[in-house]
This record gives sequence, C-alpha cells and structure tokens, in this order.
Amino acid sequence: MVSLKNDRFLRALLRKPVDRTPIWMMRQAGRYLPEYRETRRLAGSFLDLCKNTELACEVTMQPLRRYSMDAAILFSDILTVPDAMGLGLYFEEGEGPRFRKSINNESDVRNLKSIKAEDDLSYVMNAVRAIRKELNGDIPLIGFSGSPWTLATYMVEGGSSKDFAKVKTMAYSQPELMHSLLGILADAVADYLGAQISAGAQAVQIFDTWGGSLSSQGYKDFSLAYMKRIIEQLSVTLEGSSVPVILFTKGGGQWLPFIAETGAHAIGIDWTTDIKNARSQVGDLVALQGNMDPAILFSSPKRIREEVANILEGFGKGTGHVFNLGHGITPGVDPDNVSAFVDAVQELSPKYHL
Amino acid sequence: MVSLKNDRFLRALLRKPVDRTPIWMMRQAGRYLPEYRETRRLAGSFLDLCKNTELACEVTMQPLRRYSMDAAILFSDILTVPDAMGLGLYFEEGEGPRFRKSINNESDVRNLKSIKAEDDLSYVMNAVRAIRKELNGDIPLIGFSGSPWTLATYMVEGGSSKDFAKVKTMAYSQPELMHSLLGILADAVADYLGAQISAGAQAVQIFDTWGGSLSSQGYKDFSLAYMKRIIEQLSVTLEGSSVPVILFTKGGGQWLPFIAETGAHAIGIDWTTDIKNARSQVGDLVALQGNMDPAILFSSPKRIREEVANILEGFGKGTGHVFNLGHGITPGVDPDNVSAFVDAVQELSPKYHL
Repeated sequence: MVSLKNDRFLRALLRKPVDRTPIWMMRQAGRYLPEYRETRRLAGSFLDLCKNTELACEVTMQPLRRYSMDAAILFSDILTVPDAMGLGLYFEEGEGPRFRKSINNESDVRNLKSIKAEDDLSYVMNAVRAIRKELNGDIPLIGFSGSPWTLATYMVEGGSSKDFAKVKTMAYSQPELMHSLLGILADAVADYLGAQISAGAQAVQIFDTWGGSLSSQGYKDFSLAYMKRIIEQLSVTLEGSSVPVILFTKGGGQWLPFIAETGAHAIGIDWTTDIKNARSQVGDLVALQGNMDPAILFSSPKRIREEVANILEGFGKGTGHVFNLGHGITPGVDPDNVSAFVDAVQELSPKYHL
Repeated sequence: MVSLKNDRFLRALLRKPVDRTPIWMMRQAGRYLPEYRETRRLAGSFLDLCKNTELACEVTMQPLRRYSMDAAILFSDILTVPDAMGLGLYFEEGEGPRFRKSINNESDVRNLKSIKAEDDLSYVMNAVRAIRKELNGDIPLIGFSGSPWTLATYMVEGGSSKDFAKVKTMAYSQPELMHSLLGILADAVADYLGAQISAGAQAVQIFDTWGGSLSSQGYKDFSLAYMKRIIEQLSVTLEGSSVPVILFTKGGGQWLPFIAETGAHAIGIDWTTDIKNARSQVGDLVALQGNMDPAILFSSPKRIREEVANILEGFGKGTGHVFNLGHGITPGVDPDNVSAFVDAVQELSPKYHL
C-alpha cells in the first residue's frame, strides 16, 4: 500500500498534534451535489448505487474533487447488515428505508441468516478496495455501520418510526429477546467493520442514529453496551493495531461521559451539544468530532464562517477535534456554501494548534 | 370560587411539602381513551373539538373519571395563537398540524393579525371557565401554549418538519426578522396565558416542542430568551401572585441549568434525561416534572411499576417532583396500563415525603 499523504484526520482521532483541525462531512457524497444526482440517476435505486463498485467509488470521490476534505467515507448505507441477513432493504422515495420482512418474535430472530461479511457483503469490501485504490494514499478512508440498536429499530419497526413503539415494546416487554437480537447484530457488525478494515478502511464510525430515542438507562442497556462489545471484539481482531473507532449517537449529548468509557477513540457529537462543555466532560479520554448545525449551510458564507469560528473557539487549543457537521448535510444546500465551510475550517483553525 | 381540595400538584411545583408525589400525564385527554375517540367522532375535526366548549370540557374530564390524577389540563392545541393571527390551522389525518398561510418574509410578519386573547381566543377562555366549574375545586387546572420558537417553526415551515430547514434558514440568515416574529409571538403568548389564568387556569405550561432542534446557542437566543420574556411579562401582569409556570423543552436535557434561571417554577424533562442528574444540576432553583418514557406504557403493569420506582428513587427524597411522562401518552396504550402507572406513583411515592 502507498503511504498516507494526509494523516491529519487519523492523528486528531488519536489526539496526536496536527497543523490544523481536520474536516470531513457526514453524507459528503450526497444529494446536495449535482454530479451525485446524475450518477444516482444512472445507477437506478439508492441500493443499486451502493452495490455498484464503480459508481459507489465514483460518488465517494465526487466531493473530494470539489473540496479539500481530510477524509473520504465509504458510500454505503447503515442498514447493509440486516439486508444481508435476509430482511430485504429497499427505499421508498421520500419515505426512508424499509424492510420487506420485519422482526416480530423469537422465530424471526432465529431465522435471520448468519452472515460472514467478507462473503455476504462482498460488494462493500469491493467498494472499499476500489476507493482505496482511487484515493491513492491522498487521504484516509472511513468505513462504517449502523449501531446494533439502530439496526434493531428498523428491523423491528420495518422502517423509520416516530415513536419507536414496536421496538421499545419489545425492549421493555421481552428484554431477553431484544438482547439476543442485539447480541447477534453486535457480532455481525464487529465482523463487518473488521472486514472493512481488512479491505482497507483506516477508521470506522458506528452511526447510532436512534440511541437518542432511549431513556438514559435504556441507552446504556440497549445501545451503548453493544457498541462497547463491538469495540472490544474489534480490538481483539486487530490485535491492538490502532484503527480509530468513532461512536456517533445522535441525541447522545447527555451521555458523553459514559460513551467516553467504551474504549472508542472519538465521540461524534450532534449540533445540540455545546462543544466546550463536551470537551470539559470527556477530558483527555477521547477526541470529539463535530458539530455545526447542518442548517447553517443554508445561510451565507459570512454566517458560516462565524459559526465555524465559534465552534473552533469552543473546543479551544490543542488536538483532539475533527471538524464535521452535527448530522448529515441536507439536500438543497448550495455547494458553494460548502466551500465556504471547508475554507473557514482550514483558514481559522491553525492558530489553535500552535 | 370554591377552595381547592387537592393542591398537591401546585405545592410540589412551588417546592412545598406534600404527602406523596403528584401525577398527571401530558395528553391525558387523548386518543388512547375509547371515550375520547367517540367524542372526537361526534365533534368532527380536532379543531372543532377544541372550539366546542361543552365537548372540550367533556374530554378534559374523561381521564379524571378513570384515574386519580392530581391535575387537569385544558383540552386545546399548542398552535391556537397563530391560528387566531390568521394563518388558518388545520389537521391532516396522520400528518400533524398545517397552516393554510405560512410566514416567508417581512410582509407576512407585518400582516399577522394583532390579537387580544380574551376576544380572539374566547373559545379557549370559555373552555377554561367551563372546566373550572366542572372540576368544582377537586384538582387544579393547567393552561398552556406552544413556545414562541415552536409556534414559529410551524408558522414558517407551514407544518411539521424533519430538519427545520426553512425556519432555521430564516433564523440564521435573517435573524432580525426572526427576532421580530418571536417578539410578537412572545407578547401574544404572555397575553394568552394571562387570559387563561384570569379565566381560571391555576398553573401554566409552555410546550417548547422544537427547542431541542436548535444548537445550544441557538436555543438560548431563539427559544429560551422568549420563554423568559413571557415569564417576566406574566409576573408583571399577575403582580407577584404565584401561579406556577412550567417550561417543557423536548430535547432540552443539556440546557437545564439555563432553563432553571428563567424564573420558571418548574422544568418539564423528557424521558432521555436522568432525573437524578437533572436534580443535581438544578438544585433548589426549580421543581422537576417528568419523566417516564411513554413507551413503557406498552409493557406490563409489573414493568411499569419498576420504572416508576426507578424514577422516584432517582429524584429521591423531598418535594419538588411532579410525576409525568417524558412526552405525551401514545395512542394505542391500554388504558389499564395507565391505571397501573397512576397506582404505582400513588403507592410508591409516600415514603419519599416522610
């Protein structure tokens, strides 16, 4: 493998000194880019795009041609694992993800296909290898998966949900069944992320999109415990090589001290959390990734720059900060405003690393 | 007026000693009750029900015939104020609230009808008076409104939203316009709550349903500042008489110390917040209201009782706790599980008040 030319992102995750704050954006390969919409049109469905090695690689590279990002992220979906387990993932326009089969009882859990990521999700590993080749050592590649709890919400609800009534009913009424499902998912996600790392991912992020729907205790029991299990399994698989793991729980701002104790290298924080306060809570345990409100990108370059300045000042001096949005970039954002965003981070951050 | 027979709820809000923890439920008059669904059918639309004095009074009383609640809450909607201002509120089945006109620019703000609640929302005051009469001093009546920011989100978006792109674009790109809208709304809500109190409401709650969509600084600037303004105006109007004000920001768990400094008597906390941690953050400044996950009501009486015990133990000894759900009760809950919930609070809480 060629050596990495820009390792700012990996260094910041490991809290090593950097010259400026690295930046990437959640969903940076996405609908706000006209070239993405064009490729997506050619590919067919969203899932067709994920499964097409060449086109998945192409859309991963698109934002990097426009912006000096410090990391690329695999183009894929958070729900590939349950899809491979046989639930039949599909997307209804404007409706979000859906599964053809959902999990309602013990027999449904037992009938989940036992998977080996290298074989059953080979299209993902092919994409990882193709992207690494295309990146040619310029910047590191991030792999990812949904968290076990987040996968379980879609698997039990059959799709998106407002109040998570079905999955919570299972968690509160049949906790053993829920724990058995989450255990299966944690093992599968650990294997999946391990396979992505073997294929070339240089850091991994676990997207816990719906951990924030739980109570404080529910979060610890049903979401955090299983992300911790993944981290532990990965560290055994990797035999101590330091591939950084980022945990991102949307709505998890009240639980940072607990997240920091999982062994994760970094915590992704959403835009509702004050980053200064977050840093004071986690201290030197982990790096922080975030956390500008994606909606700021609908305003002006001047306003964007002000917000970047506030967040940099909030985190303060020293390493351990990866700049990002607090959630995925929203379709409809002007790509020029993204330039203003990336430029602002690059221009304003060096003084925090002197 | 007859004197109040059960003032446990009001005493707890003011942090005075009580014999047990008082309880009521957000949306206690609602779709989980078959008798509510029947009355709603007779009334026509949801808004027809709100505007029908006799039927609004009837549905307010329905949960009180089943359960020993310590407070009643006016049956109405959080969006009555912008409706009275001329935006035309309506409800699409399964879609949530919508406005026929939305706010897009300065001229839309200027054209909002200037309202006087006693006249322009007389149907609400009629309902308050009718309910007070019907309650006959048994338990206190809570009045309410949406918060200025929450009203603004619906007014600018034209309805519910996932990412609040329009309203945040206005807030971040045209802050003066947003502040002028929020100022108008704060004054109208203060007048509205004052009128409800004059008509007989014995406590008021401000529902800040969407404050949690903002960044920490955005919350302070666009939501909290205007709730504080309402509290200040109310305290002038009421000349120091202590009608308790409860602020409930869904997703506001990270901002409790700031909310506690507004002059509110109590903070409503959603189910994601650990109530023990919340109490340690706000100390003796305010009472706390909450915060069981509504989804627990889908489980068993045994599990519900365990959760009630956990929350009571979390808050600990002494007054200053009003038991509630962390959000409105979900349609589909078995009314018998609500009995188990209310009974558990009444049976398990006295020992915390010895």
